[in-house]
Amino acid sequence: MIDVHTHHVSREFPDMSALDASPRWPRMEMIDAARGQVMIAGRNFRTVDSRCWDPPTRLRDMDAAGVAVQAVSVMPELLTYWAAGEPAAAFAHHLNQGIAAIVAHAPDRFVGLGMVPLQDPERAARELERCMALDGIVGVEVGSHVGDRPLGDPAHAPFFAAAERLGAAILVHALHPLGDSMLVGPPILNNYVGFPLETGFSVASIITGGILEQFPRLRIGFCHGGGALMAVLPRLSHGWQIDESVRASLPRPPEEYARRLFFDTLVYDERTLRYLHSLVGPDQLMVGSDYPFIVMETPPGALLASSSLPDEDKQRIREVNARRFLYGPEAC
Amino acid sequence: MIDVHTHHVSREFPDMSALDASPRWPRMEMIDAARGQVMIAGRNFRTVDSRCWDPPTRLRDMDAAGVAVQAVSVMPELLTYWAAGEPAAAFAHHLNQGIAAIVAHAPDRFVGLGMVPLQDPERAARELERCMALDGIVGVEVGSHVGDRPLGDPAHAPFFAAAERLGAAILVHALHPLGDSMLVGPPILNNYVGFPLETGFSVASIITGGILEQFPRLRIGFCHGGGALMAVLPRLSHGWQIDESVRASLPRPPEEYARRLFFDTLVYDERTLRYLHSLVGPDQLMVGSDYPFIVMETPPGALLASSSLPDEDKQRIREVNARRFLYGPEAC
Repeated sequence: MIDVHTHHVSREFPDMSALDASPRWPRMEMIDAARGQVMIAGRNFRTVDSRCWDPPTRLRDMDAAGVAVQAVSVMPELLTYWAAGEPAAAFAHHLNQGIAAIVAHAPDRFVGLGMVPLQDPERAARELERCMALDGIVGVEVGSHVGDRPLGDPAHAPFFAAAERLGAAILVHALHPLGDSMLVGPPILNNYVGFPLETGFSVASIITGGILEQFPRLRIGFCHGGGALMAVLPRLSHGWQIDESVRASLPRPPEEYARRLFFDTLVYDERTLRYLHSLVGPDQLMVGSDYPFIVMETPPGALLASSSLPDEDKQRIREVNARRFLYGPEAC
Repeated sequence: MIDVHTHHVSREFPDMSALDASPRWPRMEMIDAARGQVMIAGRNFRTVDSRCWDPPTRLRDMDAAGVAVQAVSVMPELLTYWAAGEPAAAFAHHLNQGIAAIVAHAPDRFVGLGMVPLQDPERAARELERCMALDGIVGVEVGSHVGDRPLGDPAHAPFFAAAERLGAAILVHALHPLGDSMLVGPPILNNYVGFPLETGFSVASIITGGILEQFPRLRIGFCHGGGALMAVLPRLSHGWQIDESVRASLPRPPEEYARRLFFDTLVYDERTLRYLHSLVGPDQLMVGSDYPFIVMETPPGALLASSSLPDEDKQRIREVNARRFLYGPEAC
């Protein structure tokens, strides 16, 4: 089994103060040998543990859970799209080297998804080249939107062009969801309500922005089953059918694009998994666990395993599709 | 068959200039005897026709489509939550009288859902009383959020309390979705992408705001199948299970509340309808068509009719559930 959605946090972050004095650069404050607080802007963003940075710990968990390979990407909060391009690129390079070091520890068990400063698309394209040149890195993780820009914004074309040219996989993760003022209840609802809605906006922007039309060989995967895409797609498809202005901007039916994107199975409910499977088909789903964070699936792929999906599809979802996403169609 | 989701636009709007000089009050500019432009802030918001205001035209369409009863509510843009409470209440009363006049034309074929100035919750509670006193009106339509406030905001308690006390049905419709800056493509995507996501925020706020805990006899229905609720609910349920702060704010599992809300079947895809049915059960779905607007289902209930849902459920969805929503449990 390949788990495409697992996160990494460095045990030590670079000192960015020479390049940029912002208090938002993360700093690790260790609690003990195995636990630390990721301090961002003076507060503990998240308490993390050695599973985030220690390959032997991860390998033990993987062995216990039957995970052959983890794709490793940074904790999304570390994407630092708020910063200027230059320091963000330096920070990204440091973290990408950290991911490459994890992969180097067990190259047959880990594969890396780095990061780029997508707030500066030309620089992100250059940084992607540097990142893909690191051993063991096959793509990048990006946030669901970038500052004021939706992910499918035309401004990101230089990055997408580079990703297509370099054959880089792109894994999209929710980040700083819109609309937290529209939530009622504890702030953590941002995670349980905001994230899936945010991801819905993100996938929709990739589809309606024509990104797959412009860059047909791109491999883009969305965490958490693409969030609310499953609720948006039928209505968008209906709009495409009845509304000339939608067809004028998008040559193919939205579902055709959706069926070229990848989605992890981290949807928490078998009914949801089966519905998603019916929408995007058996070839676009992959196991993703969110290891080692709070909403993670334990063990990875548990919902898939217990579901009534055909065994043949389960096998594809456990391995083949992820291989295609990470390494490209020629890998299968 | 009862169609719970149909809209009304007055042939003439009241002159609001004495109470409030805003250019946002709508004005009808007739094109010919059967068509008019709804002018809002100096531009044509929508060209509408006599189906919006003429009972005989509606009855002809209903007869042709096998619709026994239409629940009639205003075009959501007319909810005017931007205005001060006093002029908004006067405007609402005028439109509510218009809806009552349509119902009076054929009281066995129409039922009214009025409107209240929810931006001023105490006034909305008083206006609801005046509205419910009109013959043929059994509830109100409300927008998915109210200015800066989510629908489930505690500030709306006076309105919800009055609705529970008066037995008023509440139909929720997407209005002015969040996040239009996150859409890429023609502005109409607001309708195809923004509306379902917006509705997801709205249902979530009703659930996590504990509105059904505080007012257990409320009957709240959501248009367009509750939008992205179907993608949010499994993750929210997961959060409720693993996260004490969510359980502390909400005594029952989120799905229990979802299964006490009502949803129309305007979801455009049989897979989506069956998935929604699996989430909320056969007793909470109702036919809604969005008559006579562009995304309407023609004929109403077509997707339901052609679906593989059990005949027994189809019959409940066509009539019994809507009756329970509109008139209360004692009506069945």
